[in-house]
Amino acid sequence: MIKMPIPCRRCGSADAEVYIPYARLSLCPECFRDFYVKRIKRTVEEFRMFRTDDRVGVAVSGGKDSTALLHGLKEAFPNMEFVALHVDLGIEGYSEECREKVEKLTEVLDVELEVYDLKEELGFTIDDFKRTIYRRKICSACGTVKRHIFEVLAGRVGVKVLATGHNLDDIVGVMLNNFFSGNWSQLVRLRPVLEPVEPNQTLKVKPLITTPEDENLLYCLYSDLPFREENCPHAHKERISRNREILEFLSKRNPNFRHQMLRNFLKLIPILEEAIEKPKYRRCRICGYPSSSDVCAFCRRVELVRKAKGMNIKTEKA
Amino acid sequence: MIKMPIPCRRCGSADAEVYIPYARLSLCPECFRDFYVKRIKRTVEEFRMFRTDDRVGVAVSGGKDSTALLHGLKEAFPNMEFVALHVDLGIEGYSEECREKVEKLTEVLDVELEVYDLKEELGFTIDDFKRTIYRRKICSACGTVKRHIFEVLAGRVGVKVLATGHNLDDIVGVMLNNFFSGNWSQLVRLRPVLEPVEPNQTLKVKPLITTPEDENLLYCLYSDLPFREENCPHAHKERISRNREILEFLSKRNPNFRHQMLRNFLKLIPILEEAIEKPKYRRCRICGYPSSSDVCAFCRRVELVRKAKGMNIKTEKA
Repeated sequence: MIKMPIPCRRCGSADAEVYIPYARLSLCPECFRDFYVKRIKRTVEEFRMFRTDDRVGVAVSGGKDSTALLHGLKEAFPNMEFVALHVDLGIEGYSEECREKVEKLTEVLDVELEVYDLKEELGFTIDDFKRTIYRRKICSACGTVKRHIFEVLAGRVGVKVLATGHNLDDIVGVMLNNFFSGNWSQLVRLRPVLEPVEPNQTLKVKPLITTPEDENLLYCLYSDLPFREENCPHAHKERISRNREILEFLSKRNPNFRHQMLRNFLKLIPILEEAIEKPKYRRCRICGYPSSSDVCAFCRRVELVRKAKGMNIKTEKA
Repeated sequence: MIKMPIPCRRCGSADAEVYIPYARLSLCPECFRDFYVKRIKRTVEEFRMFRTDDRVGVAVSGGKDSTALLHGLKEAFPNMEFVALHVDLGIEGYSEECREKVEKLTEVLDVELEVYDLKEELGFTIDDFKRTIYRRKICSACGTVKRHIFEVLAGRVGVKVLATGHNLDDIVGVMLNNFFSGNWSQLVRLRPVLEPVEPNQTLKVKPLITTPEDENLLYCLYSDLPFREENCPHAHKERISRNREILEFLSKRNPNFRHQMLRNFLKLIPILEEAIEKPKYRRCRICGYPSSSDVCAFCRRVELVRKAKGMNIKTEKA
């Protein structure tokens, strides 16, 4: 039996290699890349994420999502200036490779890169949270740290817009999870565009909010981009797969389910926002950044990890 | 190996036969019945479904849910007056048994019964929808017919409150379905208490909204109640099992999921109601009941089925 090649639905000449189930499209690699880039452009424009004369920061981790994001943005807006922002988290056997990939990528793309080295600048790494009460929820502590550091990095390079690589599956999975557990204040934060709390903070945008996760991987492969394939050693495999499992179950008979849910939630969020109490912000006593409490979540975690390290050093000395 | 009897968690003396997973309770039949009835009482009181001096109509189909409802209400409010309302749908090999069970039940309980015989009063049966465009969605047409007829029956016996047997699984399943498909105007109608559109219509209440479906069956069995066990021949098995499958999947690791979702939706509904446009009602040109269009959904379906029957008769004569 000879495997019959299917022609690309778009160009009609090359062989199709990718099937996009929700759009019922069979595409060749080149047309897939075009399809992918055009969706980023459309998403940025639809949600008014930035203007083409903005200088935009792009949070890059070295993983497939943010790698595809930076490359896709450059393709979609070739005349714009992007600045890659990276946090070296100091995670053993992981962060080094992440940083290498990011350095390679920005070199290839000729994009400015600003790195924040946690160990160098703050004297600790994400691994150090193993010695604190966050040992079983390192991802939560790491998220808080990264959110803060990206604001610091954005300030350093002077960008007012920060793009992150959250994909459709991430967002809808977390939306469903927040919806199921009645956590509306977290749900409303999952917007495509998140306004800054204070004028000197960044506008946070998610140009991949309409892009399924597997397409980011494909885009990286077809564009021959350097990205790290290992997962973070601290990632909660169980939690991730639970969200993923629910999403897969619900998408099984409806390949459009994730897109449909995204649209539903995007309609729901402004309504919920009107109804729930807005969090009140003041300035963190230590770092001066906006915070809902006297000392912000970032500074509390830094204090915790420093205390744990200090105590540990003392024990070693004794 | 000898099967060890577990003592009832409530009375401590009788052997437990029922396990209630979301409450982690092992109960004997008597304590289960008590648990079941007290929840109905609590639900009626929490949502202010009726006052004890109201005369309350109870829609009974002969199935487990409404059978358990009527009996449970009588147990929870022994001094109140309930009137059972039944629609004989004329479905071959099904409706006759339904009516028999309802007649037996109301006799045993000494409750007044008012029956509306579709064939006798309107000249057609639900089976006749097989000849119309509703042949593949008879359940939808039947629902419209029943909603209307229950209002007629409530008017005949003079009750202002109508209780229906919708259970927790029904409600949460339909809520999720409406939520997933973005059908908010249907979602907001799934309240425990639905105010009448016009003052002369009934207040619709769902005393079993917090009761899982399987407990209705158990309650019927332990109370030795007459109920029909067959499903309606027109029931969409596939549709039902889809909703059920999603609910079971999501409840698998969290036996409290359905209760949690009900609470979430009950918080969400008033917020959505504020945000969506309220449907405008006028009077149906034919029957005079409230309607969102010139001729109400009920009268349109009646016209359709009568036309189909008439056309059919003509064809036969020809």
